[in-house]
Amino acid sequence: MYTGSKWQEKDPVLRDFDEQEILDSVSGALALREQIETVVDEIWDKGFDGIWFMGIGGTYASAMQAEVYMRGRSALPVYAENAAEFVTTGNRRFTPKSVVIMSSVSGETPEMISMAERVHEIGGRVFAFVDTPGSTLTGRNMQEYLITYPKNEQLKFYMVCNYLMYKNGEFDEYEDYCLNMEEYLAQALADTEKEADTWAAGFARRIADQLAERPDMPYYLIASGNQYGAAYSAGMCYWEEQFWIRTRVISCQEFFHGMLEVITRNTPVILYMGEDEQRPLAERVSRFLPKVCENYTIIDTGEFALYGIREEYRGSISHLVMRAVNNRIDAYLELYLRHPRTIRRYYHQFDY
Amino acid sequence: MYTGSKWQEKDPVLRDFDEQEILDSVSGALALREQIETVVDEIWDKGFDGIWFMGIGGTYASAMQAEVYMRGRSALPVYAENAAEFVTTGNRRFTPKSVVIMSSVSGETPEMISMAERVHEIGGRVFAFVDTPGSTLTGRNMQEYLITYPKNEQLKFYMVCNYLMYKNGEFDEYEDYCLNMEEYLAQALADTEKEADTWAAGFARRIADQLAERPDMPYYLIASGNQYGAAYSAGMCYWEEQFWIRTRVISCQEFFHGMLEVITRNTPVILYMGEDEQRPLAERVSRFLPKVCENYTIIDTGEFALYGIREEYRGSISHLVMRAVNNRIDAYLELYLRHPRTIRRYYHQFDY
Repeated sequence: MYTGSKWQEKDPVLRDFDEQEILDSVSGALALREQIETVVDEIWDKGFDGIWFMGIGGTYASAMQAEVYMRGRSALPVYAENAAEFVTTGNRRFTPKSVVIMSSVSGETPEMISMAERVHEIGGRVFAFVDTPGSTLTGRNMQEYLITYPKNEQLKFYMVCNYLMYKNGEFDEYEDYCLNMEEYLAQALADTEKEADTWAAGFARRIADQLAERPDMPYYLIASGNQYGAAYSAGMCYWEEQFWIRTRVISCQEFFHGMLEVITRNTPVILYMGEDEQRPLAERVSRFLPKVCENYTIIDTGEFALYGIREEYRGSISHLVMRAVNNRIDAYLELYLRHPRTIRRYYHQFDY
Repeated sequence: MYTGSKWQEKDPVLRDFDEQEILDSVSGALALREQIETVVDEIWDKGFDGIWFMGIGGTYASAMQAEVYMRGRSALPVYAENAAEFVTTGNRRFTPKSVVIMSSVSGETPEMISMAERVHEIGGRVFAFVDTPGSTLTGRNMQEYLITYPKNEQLKFYMVCNYLMYKNGEFDEYEDYCLNMEEYLAQALADTEKEADTWAAGFARRIADQLAERPDMPYYLIASGNQYGAAYSAGMCYWEEQFWIRTRVISCQEFFHGMLEVITRNTPVILYMGEDEQRPLAERVSRFLPKVCENYTIIDTGEFALYGIREEYRGSISHLVMRAVNNRIDAYLELYLRHPRTIRRYYHQFDY
C-alpha cells in the first residue's frame, strides 16, 4: 500500500544539490576575469559617457543590483535601464559614446535583441554575456564585446563593476578582493547551500502547507540594497513564474510608506537581510515586524559562515549568498508543492 | 426598520466631489508657472550637473513619473532617486553642483528632512514644493528654493520638467502647451471625474464584493510610462495604505517575464492605459489578458474627452487623468468597504 501522502514520505536531504557543479560553475565564472578586464580596458580606452546595465525580467533585477552596488562607491556614470522601455521610450541621454552591458541566458530574448539593434542604430556599443553559444545574441552584429559562459550573471556583472571601479581609482583593494573571491567564493556558496538545507526544507514545507490553506495570499518579500534585486528576481522569476505562487515585492524603505498597513498576525512576510550598506533599512523592518506579525521569516546572509571571505567583502556578495539560500528553498518547494519548475502556463506556450 | 445592508442603500452620485475645489486647486497650481520659471532660471544660471527628483512613497512615484517623462525627450541629466536610499547608500554621482527637486505634503517626512540635510552636507541645492506652510521643510536651512502650495504634486513636477526642456531647446511648443493647459486642464480633470463617476461606483461595488469573497487575493495593477507611477501610488499609497487592500504593482514589460503565470480566470487585474509613448507596452498586455482572464479591467485615459486639450499634449497628462478616475473609484471604495480613508493601523500610531 502506498498513498503518496506527505505523511509517508521521508524528507530528502540536499535535494538537487551537486556540489561539484557549483564549484566548477562559480570558479569558471571567476576565471573569466582576464577576459572581462580585456573588454573593460577596450571600453575604457575608447571612452564612454555612460555605462548602462540593461535587462528585462531577471536580467533587469541583476542590472538593478549592479547599479545600486556602484551608486555609493563610484562616480562613474552607471545606470540601470529596462530593455523594453529603452526600445519604446528611448533615452535621450544614451549617445554614440554610451555602452550597454547585458546578459542573456537563451540569447534569444526578443526585447534584448531589439534593444541591441536600437543601441547600434544610435551608434553605441554592447558588451554581452550570453550563456548559449550560437544563439542570436552571439551573432557578429549584435555586440562589440562577447563573453560566452553559462550562469553566474550577477557575479559576472559585479566583476565588471569591480574592475570599472578599480580603473577609476575607487577600488584599491581590487587585486586582494579578486584573489579572496577566487580562493573562497565557490566553496562558500556551496557551503551556504549545505548550511541552509535543513532549515530550507522545513520552510518550504511550511510554505506549501500555508498555500494549501490560503492559496490566494501573496508572500511579501521585503528587501533593500543588493537584496532588492534578489527579492525582485526570487518573487517574479522564481516564485511567480516557476511555482505560480503570488508575491508582492517591496523595498524596506517603501514598505513604511503604505504597504505596512496590510500586514497582520498571519500575513506571510519574508525579509531579506544582506550585509551591504543598506542593511540599516532592513533592520528597521526587522524591528517593526514582530510587533504586528507572527508569520514573518528573516533570511540574514550574516548567519552564514562564508569561510575565508574577508569580513569587509561579505556585503558585496550578499545577493549571491541569498540566491544560494533560495536555491535550497526552491528545491524543496518543487517537491512539496508537487510543481515541476520547468512547467509554464503561458510563457513560450503560445504567441502573445 | 433599517438593517444597514447594501441592498437598502441608494447608490450615491458624485460622492465627495467638489468641482469648484478641483478647478481652483488645479488653476492655482498652473498659476505657479511664473514662480517655477523664476526658480528654474536661477538653477539654470548657477549651472548644474544633475537634476534629481527625490521622494519616498507617493513622492517617489511622482519622481519616477518626472524621470520617465523626460527620459525620451530630454538630454538633460535628470534622475529619480529614493530619499531613504540616498541617505543610506549615498550617491557618488551627486555633487555640489547637483540639484534636488522634491515635494512634501506634511513638510515633516523624516526621510525627506534627512535627505535635504545630506544634500546640504554635500553642498548641493534643494528645490522644494511643500504643501504645509510653517512645517520643518519650509525652514530657511532646508532648501534654497521653496514654493508653498497644496496638492497637485505631479503637475508641479511636470511644470518644472516642461520649462527645463524649453530652456534646453527641447520643447518649442512650450508657450502654446502652457496656454492650452491653463485654459483647459482644470475643467478637463473635473469633467473626467464626472465622466468616470457612474462606472467607478459600479467598479468599486464589484471590488468590495470580490474582497468579501476572497479577502486574501491581491489586485494586480499593471502599467507603464507615466502610468507606472500612477499604479505604484494607487496600489501602495491609496489601496494598501488607505484601504488595506492587497495589491501587486508591475510594469507591462516586466509582467511578461514572470508575473503573467499567476493570472487565471478569476484573478483581479487592472491595466492602466495612458497615451504617452509607452502605450504600446500596455497594448500588448491588453491583447494578452482576455485570453486567460475574465476578471480584468482596463482603464484607458483615451476614453475621456479632455475637452480643449490638444491631441498631441494628451499623453503628457495621462497620469493626472488616471488620478482623476481613481479619485472616483476611491470615493466609492470608502463607502462600500465601510473603510474611512483616514484610519491607519500602524502609520503614525506608534514608533517603529
